[in-house]
Amino acid sequence: METHAMIETPYLLFLGDAPDQLAAKVAQGIKDWRPENAVGQFRMDGCKADLGLTDMTLAEAKAAGAKTLVIGVANRGGLISQEWKKVLVAALEEGFDLASGLHNLLRDEADLVAVAEATGRTLHDVRIPSVQYPIANGVKRTGKRCLAVGTDCSVGKMYTALAMDAEMRARGMQSTFRATGQTGILITGNGVPLDAVIADFMAGSIEYLTPNNDADHWDLIEGQGSLFHVSYSGVTMALVHGGQPDALILCHEPTRPHMRGLPGYTLPSLEDLRDVALKLAQVGNPACVVAGISVNTQHMGEDEAQAYLAKLETEMGLPATDPFRYGAGKLVDALAAI
Amino acid sequence: METHAMIETPYLLFLGDAPDQLAAKVAQGIKDWRPENAVGQFRMDGCKADLGLTDMTLAEAKAAGAKTLVIGVANRGGLISQEWKKVLVAALEEGFDLASGLHNLLRDEADLVAVAEATGRTLHDVRIPSVQYPIANGVKRTGKRCLAVGTDCSVGKMYTALAMDAEMRARGMQSTFRATGQTGILITGNGVPLDAVIADFMAGSIEYLTPNNDADHWDLIEGQGSLFHVSYSGVTMALVHGGQPDALILCHEPTRPHMRGLPGYTLPSLEDLRDVALKLAQVGNPACVVAGISVNTQHMGEDEAQAYLAKLETEMGLPATDPFRYGAGKLVDALAAI
Repeated sequence: METHAMIETPYLLFLGDAPDQLAAKVAQGIKDWRPENAVGQFRMDGCKADLGLTDMTLAEAKAAGAKTLVIGVANRGGLISQEWKKVLVAALEEGFDLASGLHNLLRDEADLVAVAEATGRTLHDVRIPSVQYPIANGVKRTGKRCLAVGTDCSVGKMYTALAMDAEMRARGMQSTFRATGQTGILITGNGVPLDAVIADFMAGSIEYLTPNNDADHWDLIEGQGSLFHVSYSGVTMALVHGGQPDALILCHEPTRPHMRGLPGYTLPSLEDLRDVALKLAQVGNPACVVAGISVNTQHMGEDEAQAYLAKLETEMGLPATDPFRYGAGKLVDALAAI
Repeated sequence: METHAMIETPYLLFLGDAPDQLAAKVAQGIKDWRPENAVGQFRMDGCKADLGLTDMTLAEAKAAGAKTLVIGVANRGGLISQEWKKVLVAALEEGFDLASGLHNLLRDEADLVAVAEATGRTLHDVRIPSVQYPIANGVKRTGKRCLAVGTDCSVGKMYTALAMDAEMRARGMQSTFRATGQTGILITGNGVPLDAVIADFMAGSIEYLTPNNDADHWDLIEGQGSLFHVSYSGVTMALVHGGQPDALILCHEPTRPHMRGLPGYTLPSLEDLRDVALKLAQVGNPACVVAGISVNTQHMGEDEAQAYLAKLETEMGLPATDPFRYGAGKLVDALAAI
């Protein structure tokens, strides 16, 4: 089923003139999670990022089978520069589609549109929905779904879902990572850019993204925002109800002084998140349970992280891990037992 | 402050060829709540609705001071008919702006657009936002805000807020009804069409709608959806956080067999609504309280309604009334005590 204009894989990853490694984090995500989607990297003069992939010209990547040039780098000043343009135009002429999650849309650049039309190539702006989503109908769907919910934004919800998906695949379980944001969509080639969906259709877009499936299939749904983040909680709410989750994973970053972008707003406790999210999730799926806790321990030492996780497990009665540090095994064990 | 392209008042209410009185409910709302905005009604041959206002020709309404022809009737089949078109074109030529909440947008009708441009008149499609709303910043605002939250959709949240606003004005209190849906926007001439706002900007649009105000001023914010309605709960969540309410009014219709449009989904209890809504509202405003209960008793006899309200007051420890049947006095008393 098409859930978004499907982006043709594999990709050539465009790193442009990235000022540092962090600017190329979208490309890094693709390389980390779907290495089979990345045949090589394209770097311009002065590029300070390096994914360790083979540097390729457009022609070399084409010969290696790449179908789409993915802009895997954040641009400076929010504009697509003339230097980038030369490469993008050449890529279209070479037969590549283009895919981008930039605010500066490809489709708003008249020269790119003209060349794409002339060459019959496609411009994918994954920041914008390309599907007319339905209103959610709340009908119970077959298959199983897991949603990562956070005490705050940017605490590792996407990473958690990707790591669980990878672990499930490694175990031979049936699973699909369901992307709900720009980076996730570029990693997998499809998904719903939920923050750009019209309010009335948010929950429906998630129903559409996670349709009926085999009874033992798990959708790992990428979370967005937080029920406790006043700027984005409506988006999270639509995931909790549209996603109809069977299992919630609580995500947390213990060292954050306040909610992201909201000085003066303290993070909720994991108990509060558990109680509120579960209560609301059970409206859409009375069988929903909280299955585990994913903690981003990047700012903690090894002993501190271990002690924190052990304490959480005792206090909350749930498996707790940092999937980046210790793998997603405990969380997948918990889902496998449902 | 402009919160929407402000619609010029007063209005001539267009009832078209309404098949029955119910089809003219938008016009009825304007007449009931802002009678000073309605100089007369315009009815076509075969119109079965009558608001009891003076029937006027376009010229008569113009002479009486009307500035905008408001389409106060639901159209058949979702299309603007050729019969309507003749009147709408004549109205533009007569010097009226047009305002509509129809799905069939005025701006999508090439002939109306052409005449509006030629005559310098404005087409207001209140179903679509006309403002670029900000992302919510969660900063505490001055003044007071009350939000109506429901156990379900369409239980009387708009009516409750309008009735409280009217009662406050009658008492000489400072208040403003803040519209968040098509009907409310047409009644007052401005507001936010929340269900059509892009997900990321929902809470921000409500911050924008309810800005800093005098310390003793109340915004009565029109509710939308329900935290327990899986199709629209994200929209409600954005109101709870963007609205930063000081007071919540719980709205309920006790005889409904299931959630609106969702067979198999039972309504939450008022206790559940109170607990979940208050917990979430206190994220944005720790001082928020639940101030009262508004019950739609239209399907109950007089004794039954009285007994039900008395029982609720005892069980919940909150003032409970049906503002349509008994006035909004009790609810305003509760706000006045905050």
